[in-house]
Amino acid sequence: MALPQSAFSALDTPAVCIDLDVVDANLQRFQAYCDSHGLAARPHIKTHKLPDFAHRQLELGAKGITCQKIGEAQVMAASGIDDILLTYNILGEVKLARLKELAQHCRLTVVADNQVVVDGLAEAFAGGPALRVLVECDSGGGRCGVQKPAEAVTLAQAVDGAQGLHFAGLMTYPPKGRIEVVRDWLGEAMHTFQRAGIECEVISSGGTPDIWRAHEVTAATEHRAGTYIYNDRMMVRAGAASWETCGLDVLTTVVSRPTETRAVLDAGSKALSSDLGGLEGHGYIREYPDAVIHSLSEEHAVVDLSACTGAKPAIGERVRVVPNHACVVSNLFNSVHGLRDGKVERLFTVEARGLMQ
Amino acid sequence: MALPQSAFSALDTPAVCIDLDVVDANLQRFQAYCDSHGLAARPHIKTHKLPDFAHRQLELGAKGITCQKIGEAQVMAASGIDDILLTYNILGEVKLARLKELAQHCRLTVVADNQVVVDGLAEAFAGGPALRVLVECDSGGGRCGVQKPAEAVTLAQAVDGAQGLHFAGLMTYPPKGRIEVVRDWLGEAMHTFQRAGIECEVISSGGTPDIWRAHEVTAATEHRAGTYIYNDRMMVRAGAASWETCGLDVLTTVVSRPTETRAVLDAGSKALSSDLGGLEGHGYIREYPDAVIHSLSEEHAVVDLSACTGAKPAIGERVRVVPNHACVVSNLFNSVHGLRDGKVERLFTVEARGLMQ
Repeated sequence: MALPQSAFSALDTPAVCIDLDVVDANLQRFQAYCDSHGLAARPHIKTHKLPDFAHRQLELGAKGITCQKIGEAQVMAASGIDDILLTYNILGEVKLARLKELAQHCRLTVVADNQVVVDGLAEAFAGGPALRVLVECDSGGGRCGVQKPAEAVTLAQAVDGAQGLHFAGLMTYPPKGRIEVVRDWLGEAMHTFQRAGIECEVISSGGTPDIWRAHEVTAATEHRAGTYIYNDRMMVRAGAASWETCGLDVLTTVVSRPTETRAVLDAGSKALSSDLGGLEGHGYIREYPDAVIHSLSEEHAVVDLSACTGAKPAIGERVRVVPNHACVVSNLFNSVHGLRDGKVERLFTVEARGLMQ
Repeated sequence: MALPQSAFSALDTPAVCIDLDVVDANLQRFQAYCDSHGLAARPHIKTHKLPDFAHRQLELGAKGITCQKIGEAQVMAASGIDDILLTYNILGEVKLARLKELAQHCRLTVVADNQVVVDGLAEAFAGGPALRVLVECDSGGGRCGVQKPAEAVTLAQAVDGAQGLHFAGLMTYPPKGRIEVVRDWLGEAMHTFQRAGIECEVISSGGTPDIWRAHEVTAATEHRAGTYIYNDRMMVRAGAASWETCGLDVLTTVVSRPTETRAVLDAGSKALSSDLGGLEGHGYIREYPDAVIHSLSEEHAVVDLSACTGAKPAIGERVRVVPNHACVVSNLFNSVHGLRDGKVERLFTVEARGLMQ
C-alpha cells in the first residue's frame, strides 16, 4: 500500500488530508440511505466545520444542518445556510443575546431539557417571532435530556405556554449500539404525546455509529450525523465504516527509530487528540496496519512495530494515520488539505474551529 | 469557595482564565529554584504559546526558551527572543528550509537522535554559520533518543564531523518519577564523553512532574519545564503543585441537571481535551471538589455528584475546572483571559497555537 508521493511530498507534516472523492461518496451514501427510508437528513457540521461541505450536504438533499455551538451556527448562517438546529441548552445573558441575533439570520431551532433554559429563551424571545424549541430527551445516553416521556410533555407544555417559543418536537443523542432502547424510548414518548394531544413535528435522532440502522428508530423523522463525512477508526470498529470510506488522514513523518521495534511520528495529542473511544492505541497507520500507536505525548506518537512482519518504516518516511476520532482532529488544525486523484486540490480553512462559545 | 462573580459574569463560557498573580509566582518560584541550584532555566513555551509570558520568563533570568515546533519558534523569534532550543528532530526539505530561515533570526539549537537527521541538517547548513546540535538521549522515557551513551558519542562525532554543525551537548526528556534513572543515565553519559575527550557544553533535562528534584540530576546544566507556569491536575497528583498554584482554569456553565446526581457542563473534549495522564476523571471542579467529571463528549462534560455532600450545582451556575493537562487546553483555545485581583485584565491571543508544523 504505497503512499502516492506526488500528492504528499510538498506538504509539511503533520497535515490533515481529506480525500474529496471519499467524502463526497460518504455524503451521497447517507443521503441516499435517508431518502430510501423517508428520513430527513440533518448533518452535524461539528465534524468538518466547513461551510463548503455543509452546502454540499444541503445540495444533496439534507433538510438543514446541526450545530453544537452558537459560534459554529454564526459561521454557517453567514455562509447563507438557512435551516439550523442548535442541539445545545443555551443559557446566560451573553449567549441569549447572541442567539437572538443569530435567529434573525436563519430559521433557527434550539433545544431545552429543563425549565431554566426555557425561561431564559422565553425572556429573550418574548415579543418577537417564535423560536422553535425541541425538548431534549435522554434515551439512554446518560448526557443531557429529560429522563421520562412524561417530563418531556411537561416541558413541551411549558415551551408552548411561553411567549416567543414554539414547541417543535423531540431531540435525542442516542447511546451507541443500543438502537432498540432508543426506539422504545421515542416510541413510548410518541404515544405519551399523542395521549396528551401534543403534536411532535420533528423527532430528531442522531449519531454515526449506528447510522445504517437509523431507520429502525421508527418514531424518528430525521437523523443527525456528523462523523460519517470523514469516518474514523471508531466508526470502523463500530461497523459503520471501512478503511476505504475513511476520508480524513493525518499525514505524518517518521522522525525517529530509536529501537528495532519503536518508531516515532510527528503527530501527538495536539494533532491526533487523545480520544480513545474504547479502543486500544491512537490510530491506524495505513501503510503499516500491524503497527500500534501505543502512546502519545503532545507532539510525538510512539509506535510499537513488534507485530510488523516484513518492512518497517524508515526515518523520514511519511505515513498516513486514520485517527480514532476525526471530529476532534479537524478541531485541532486551522486548515485541512483537500485531495483528489492523488493531488492537493484545495486548502480549506476550518472556519468554525476554535469558536468555543 | 465562592466564585468571584464580578470577574466572570461578563465572560461567555467555556473560557480559559489565567490567574496572572499565580502564574507570575510560579515563574518566580522555578527561577529561584534553578538559581539556588546553579541550574540554567530554559522554559518550554509549548504550554502557554504566548510571547508575553516567554519574555517574562527571560526577564526573570531564564537562559533561553524551548520550543517543540518550528512554527512556535518562528513566533517567539519574531517577538524578539534570541536563544531558542528546538527539542525536535527536524526532517524533510520543507522543514529544513524553514529551519535555515529561522536560524538567521535567533541563536538556534536543535536536537538529533539519528544519522538521517544529522545528514539533513548538515546538507541544509553546510557553508553557513554552524548550527548548534544536542544529541537526544532516551534516559528511560521510551520516546525519542539514542539508547546508550556510546551511541550518543558516535552521533556527537558525526555532528562535529559535519560541515555547518556544532555538537553542543545532550538533551533528554526524562520519564516521570524516575529521577534516579535519569541521573544515572546522564552521569554515565558524562563519563563516556569525558573518556572520548568530547566536551558537553549543555546537558539539558526537563519536565514539570519532578521539577523540584531537578537538581538531583547532577550532570544536568539546564532544566526545561513547561507546565509549571499553569500547573494542572496531573501536576497536583505528581506532587509538583497544589490547587493554589494552578493558574489555568476553564470557566464553564452548568447547562443541565438531568438527575439528582448528574450535572452537565459546557466544556467537553474540545475544551478540556481527553488527556487522562493516568488519572480518573477529566478535571477538578474548584467549587465542588467531590464532584467527578466522569465522561466527556465533544462539547459536554458529564459530572457525577454522588459524592457531593451539601449543595449541588444549579443550572446556570458557573464553575471553574482545573484541567488534567493545561498544555493541551491552551492549545484548544484561540484566546485566553488574564485575570488579576478578581478582574479580567487582558485577553491574550494564543499566538503560537495551531502552528502544527
